[in-house]
Amino acid sequence: MTPTLNRPEALAGRVVAAAAPSSCFDRELFLRGVKRLEQAGAPVRVPEEVYARRGFLAGSDEQRASALVRAWEDPDAGAVWCARGGYGSLRILPLLDFERMASAPRLMAGFSDVTALFSVLCGRLRVPAIHAPVATALGKMEQAHAAEAAGALVRLLSGEPPLPLRADPPLTLRPGKAEGRLLGGNLATLCSLCGTPFFPDLAGCVLFLEDHREAPYRIDRMLAQLRLSGLLSGVTGVALGGFSDCGPPDQVEQVLADALSPLEVPVAGGFPAGHGKRNLPFALGVPVSLDADAGVITFLESPTA
Amino acid sequence: MTPTLNRPEALAGRVVAAAAPSSCFDRELFLRGVKRLEQAGAPVRVPEEVYARRGFLAGSDEQRASALVRAWEDPDAGAVWCARGGYGSLRILPLLDFERMASAPRLMAGFSDVTALFSVLCGRLRVPAIHAPVATALGKMEQAHAAEAAGALVRLLSGEPPLPLRADPPLTLRPGKAEGRLLGGNLATLCSLCGTPFFPDLAGCVLFLEDHREAPYRIDRMLAQLRLSGLLSGVTGVALGGFSDCGPPDQVEQVLADALSPLEVPVAGGFPAGHGKRNLPFALGVPVSLDADAGVITFLESPTA
Repeated sequence: MTPTLNRPEALAGRVVAAAAPSSCFDRELFLRGVKRLEQAGAPVRVPEEVYARRGFLAGSDEQRASALVRAWEDPDAGAVWCARGGYGSLRILPLLDFERMASAPRLMAGFSDVTALFSVLCGRLRVPAIHAPVATALGKMEQAHAAEAAGALVRLLSGEPPLPLRADPPLTLRPGKAEGRLLGGNLATLCSLCGTPFFPDLAGCVLFLEDHREAPYRIDRMLAQLRLSGLLSGVTGVALGGFSDCGPPDQVEQVLADALSPLEVPVAGGFPAGHGKRNLPFALGVPVSLDADAGVITFLESPTA
Repeated sequence: MTPTLNRPEALAGRVVAAAAPSSCFDRELFLRGVKRLEQAGAPVRVPEEVYARRGFLAGSDEQRASALVRAWEDPDAGAVWCARGGYGSLRILPLLDFERMASAPRLMAGFSDVTALFSVLCGRLRVPAIHAPVATALGKMEQAHAAEAAGALVRLLSGEPPLPLRADPPLTLRPGKAEGRLLGGNLATLCSLCGTPFFPDLAGCVLFLEDHREAPYRIDRMLAQLRLSGLLSGVTGVALGGFSDCGPPDQVEQVLADALSPLEVPVAGGFPAGHGKRNLPFALGVPVSLDADAGVITFLESPTA
């Protein structure tokens, strides 16, 4: 066990508290996602404040930040689950007292825009988290995929040992094996932290990336920016999830391969996580072993204490 | 006159050399733009290498970088004019010998993706440039707007004193007056430099921003990133060009006003420059006076020696 991880406790019969740090959302879709997680075995507490709205955001920055902290510190809750991604986490980063949050670590689940929060939580504070569908995404999924994702999320929240994540199908962009803490998430959200004090230290880490509706030139631009900023040096390997609706898959694949090859580390694509049909939950912030030939991420430690 | 500016000479009867540092482009559209500039009085030299192509780029990074330097150093040319924006300038920044380029300054014209080059040229090297339609953009414009833009570009290339740029109609987001060197350009391109060594020092500068097809949340995200990176501190005023096809104009305006208000400097919108119907050429890198109440940018010095 890496002594430097600040592991939260598993759910252990407590509720999951919903929080909305990002965009406002469709209530019906959200509640369908909540129902699906509950059917999979985790009761969800939905504070009325998640329904706040201000423009495209789920309330003002102050509202979203304080609601997130309330969910985090809810004594009845064993985890925090984000309602929707979209955009907005970046705006509340300067308002959050991360040291205080780290002093009572919680297991947080979400993806996409939530990457901004994970970057500080998993990166700087070394509190592991769960990369998983947000509630609206779970609500929107086809039934079978939703059941698969909800079941896997409940197992991780409950502290069961993480299963390997297998690429489907494997796509070896650069062969080899790598080890390191798994960090990252949504490329555009991660890139929006570039230059700010909130970008995670990726040295010695395996980087996970996924994205949605970003044209190939934008993917190239974001990776060029990260590389020119020196923020990818020291990355030991790259695991790619879905790049859904980003243009012709062969062009996207070529851009990813070209942009990541200067790193000279193993790069594996095809992991069923992101904005595509399948979005399998997995642990962020924990040490993993990436096998880019077989297309497998093996989790070497549990995200929970 | 500010002694620290490194002014290029005006055209003085020489040709304009075309260069393609960014995306590949439609030859017909490009040649229509070239013809329009020639009809306005500036002969254009088109090296065959601008037609190179590699994926979505106008040739490999090495090709585009060396072709740009050849146009820059062409003894028969008095200015360099970019063929198209799109994407690609960022990729060649590490390949360019900017000190060498600054030792023989040239007047460069373009916009959009060319913002990446301007950020180093006008920002770090203090070589003024012209924010103006690239050739394909001039080729695509309605005839009357193209004639207006081509005429203004030829006048600036020829060293005529810059005329004020007037907002049409003025949109005062924060009243007041500001002075400083005018820097900036396309918001997304500028933002792609955030964190890299190529972002310009904006302290004491008036910042010009425009963009195209960026949803309000993306505009907000980019401005939040720049602000959180500390790169906007010291900006004395902000002038906004077009934000075309970025969503409902009132929502875009609200996002811009909200995101820029923490700077506590004059902010004026409505300048006819960018990806909209009108794209009036103006000098970048020179001291200006911004009147956010009247919606006027007055150029205090000439971009040319």
